Amino acid sequence: MKPLDLLQQSLHKRVLVEMKGGRSFRGVLDAYDQHLNLVLSSAEEVVQEVVTPRQGLTLLRGDSIVYISP
Amino acid sequence: MKPLDLLQQSLHKRVLVEMKGGRSFRGVLDAYDQHLNLVLSSAEEVVQEVVTPRQGLTLLRGDSIVYISP
Amino acid sequence: MKPLDLLQQSLHKRVLVEMKGGRSFRGVLDAYDQHLNLVLSSAEEVVQEVVTPRQGLTLLRGDSIVYISP
Amino acid sequence: MKPLDLLQQSLHKRVLVEMKGGRSFRGVLDAYDQHLNLVLSSAEEVVQEVVTPRQGLTLLRGDSIVYISP
Amino acid sequence: MKPLDLLQQSLHKRVLVEMKGGRSFRGVLDAYDQHLNLVLSSAEEVVQEVVTPRQGLTLLRGDSIVYISP
Amino acid sequence: MKPLDLLQQSLHKRVLVEMKGGRSFRGVLDAYDQHLNLVLSSAEEVVQEVVTPRQGLTLLRGDSIVYISP
Amino acid sequence: MKPLDLLQQSLHKRVLVEMKGGRSFRGVLDAYDQHLNLVLSSAEEVVQEVVTPRQGLTLLRGDSIVYISP
Repeated sequence: MKPLDLLQQSLHKRVLVEMKGGRSFRGVLDAYDQHLNLVLSSAEEVVQEVVTPRQGLTLLRGDSIVYISP
Repeated sequence: MKPLDLLQQSLHKRVLVEMKGGRSFRGVLDAYDQHLNLVLSSAEEVVQEVVTPRQGLTLLRGDSIVYISP
Repeated sequence: MKPLDLLQQSLHKRVLVEMKGGRSFRGVLDAYDQHLNLVLSSAEEVVQEVVTPRQGLTLLRGDSIVYISP
Repeated sequence: MKPLDLLQQSLHKRVLVEMKGGRSFRGVLDAYDQHLNLVLSSAEEVVQEVVTPRQGLTLLRGDSIVYISP
Repeated sequence: MKPLDLLQQSLHKRVLVEMKGGRSFRGVLDAYDQHLNLVLSSAEEVVQEVVTPRQGLTLLRGDSIVYISP
Repeated sequence: MKPLDLLQQSLHKRVLVEMKGGRSFRGVLDAYDQHLNLVLSSAEEVVQEVVTPRQGLTLLRGDSIVYISP
Repeated sequence: MKPLDLLQQSLHKRVLVEMKGGRSFRGVLDAYDQHLNLVLSSAEEVVQEVVTPRQGLTLLRGDSIVYISP
């Protein structure tokens, strides 16, 4: 298995995405590419314990991502 | 679907673009490329809750972008 | 349209260039390349509301640029 | 031996992964690629001595990694 | 004209080079390459208004440069 | 001689590796690659004068390295 | 002349190397490559006016270098 295979297995499942600078997202993984750019649906953004729902699809830029977890 | 396909679907629609350093933009997506460089029309820049309208077309450099959301 | 096409349309027009670190420039766009390196003429540099005129042509390195606006 | 051969030898063994910004992970190495993107199972995240278990598989982005140790 | 053409025109002329981190140089441009690495002669380094002359030729690494101006 | 030849000569010898962010390692160089990724054995990590022994082999990511010295 | 030609001319001569983060080195340039990785002999490291001699050969990673001067 390669790390990107994990993203393939995680499609259409909920993931936690921790980003640089203390921001994180929770949502359903709808798409990814080899740069780790991600698309989440039904996403919530969390900054310092403040939760903001994000309607529609959110595109996260790969180079701001630290880790991705279920 | 790949993440950049989301940008294709978002053309001519309003987006929120969160950038590094606490800056964000709201505007209509007029163009994008594979580096996530974006062009917005009718854009508003928001820094620490201060809103500044930007006339004409604004080009955002992709590597300063954290996420793009409707 | 692609984002760099906007720079082509902006040639010989005044632009605002916001840079990382709180610096910005206003000037006439005389040249650009695919890295977003820019050349401005009749430029003014603004740092914390202090305006410094820059004589001749100023070359801005693309990877320090955050956005470009009319 | 090349450095990535060490990752091959570490597959299915417990590793400590120190990341930029004071975050570390402990877990079993399940996958890696040439960018040092890693997948850990049974992972624990440690930030300022606070330990958070991460269920399932965690994908760590290579460019946030400082070092990997048994 | 492309941005690097400006460097060609600036050869053997005095330039101001603003660098990341609050450092700047003034000197005569003797050489450049496509990474914006520069060689200055008769250079003066300025950090927080303290001027230090640099004898001989000084090589500035391109990726620390913010802008170049006459 | 090229800089990476120095690493070839340093194989199986003790080195000091200074890393970004005030961390350093001492250990025996067991492997390296062209990205300056290193493997150390019998390594000690030093952060603010606190020394932590690291058992087994430690993989240091090249882009966090500042310098390598005997 | 290209900037790297200056390094060729500086071989076996004393150089000052200013690095990111307030660190500098003085020593004799023994090797370089196109990434500006350098090898110094008889090097002294200077951090906040504290001078530390470095025995043997020191390898400086190019992307931490700001400028090189005689």
